[in-house]
Amino acid sequence: MKVSVGISNRHVHLTEDDFKILFGNDAIMEIDRPVNQPGQYASKQRVTIQTTKNKYENVRILGPARSYTQVEISKTDAYFLGVNPPVRTSGDLTGASPVKIIGPKGEIDREAAIIADRHIHIDHETRVTLGLENVQEVSVRIVGEKGGILDHVMLKESNPAYYEMHLDTDDANAHLLKNNDEVEIIIK
Amino acid sequence: MKVSVGISNRHVHLTEDDFKILFGNDAIMEIDRPVNQPGQYASKQRVTIQTTKNKYENVRILGPARSYTQVEISKTDAYFLGVNPPVRTSGDLTGASPVKIIGPKGEIDREAAIIADRHIHIDHETRVTLGLENVQEVSVRIVGEKGGILDHVMLKESNPAYYEMHLDTDDANAHLLKNNDEVEIIIK
Repeated sequence: MKVSVGISNRHVHLTEDDFKILFGNDAIMEIDRPVNQPGQYASKQRVTIQTTKNKYENVRILGPARSYTQVEISKTDAYFLGVNPPVRTSGDLTGASPVKIIGPKGEIDREAAIIADRHIHIDHETRVTLGLENVQEVSVRIVGEKGGILDHVMLKESNPAYYEMHLDTDDANAHLLKNNDEVEIIIK
Repeated sequence: MKVSVGISNRHVHLTEDDFKILFGNDAIMEIDRPVNQPGQYASKQRVTIQTTKNKYENVRILGPARSYTQVEISKTDAYFLGVNPPVRTSGDLTGASPVKIIGPKGEIDREAAIIADRHIHIDHETRVTLGLENVQEVSVRIVGEKGGILDHVMLKESNPAYYEMHLDTDDANAHLLKNNDEVEIIIK
């Protein structure tokens, strides 16, 4: 059972209201390029993520607007920024780290930074076909010079969904994975 | 069977001759603090690692001088620098990536950048005690929210040795490991 890899660099999701604070009341999110998940896209707009220790400029917004504002970073990013974010499923901001998000028209302080959990996007039909209906999480085996096994890869069903595994840059780089590489699913 | 973790940030080993080019003929490597491996230390001197794409300043030299000049970086560092180094055991510079190393008195261009393999330093007695005499490589199991298994962890015997596993920052951060964390050895 195989799944292809999609690597998530640090990025931001914004609510409609927060987007307007950062880019102005009349601004709209502009599509730069669609990403694999249906309806989602990398926007042309970028923001700065700032902490008391450091900042990242030109961080991508992933559109469209959501019901929560969230900053997804890796542990490597977290050390650079001097924050200690929890590992969370997207949308769960319990204990998320405080960061300042800066746009051309305004800035906001939000407890919004998380390390996204490893997860696989999957639609119901694919889940049934692969026998994963009652499975919450899997592991994946990576072959190669820096291969190994990643545990706690959550199955995230949505309909529609593009079937792929999302990893952050730490997980990808530690195992020398590139976008669209295929890895093997293991049910423990 | 457990082993503790030592995390290697990007660093440089220098030959005596290269050290003198970078820091001057009269310079000596000054000990900032000893590291766990017997006789080795982080030096006070720092260098800049530069490529056509980017640079890292204040990169540590690990002393004492060696018979080869080597720059150990992570895959994340490699993307930043725009190089594609191979995974290598320390001292094997086959196919190593070209970088410029800059010191206060001079600079050198060397095909010296590698991604160090995952490895465990071990002395002969510990190897015998643990039943690892005829084992070349092991895997290690990491427990936690971003746990998993790291394959291809090479056993590197030296006498004396401080028994510990060296990982780069990508491997450590991907699995949320900190210095001195303990992980479990698996023989496959």
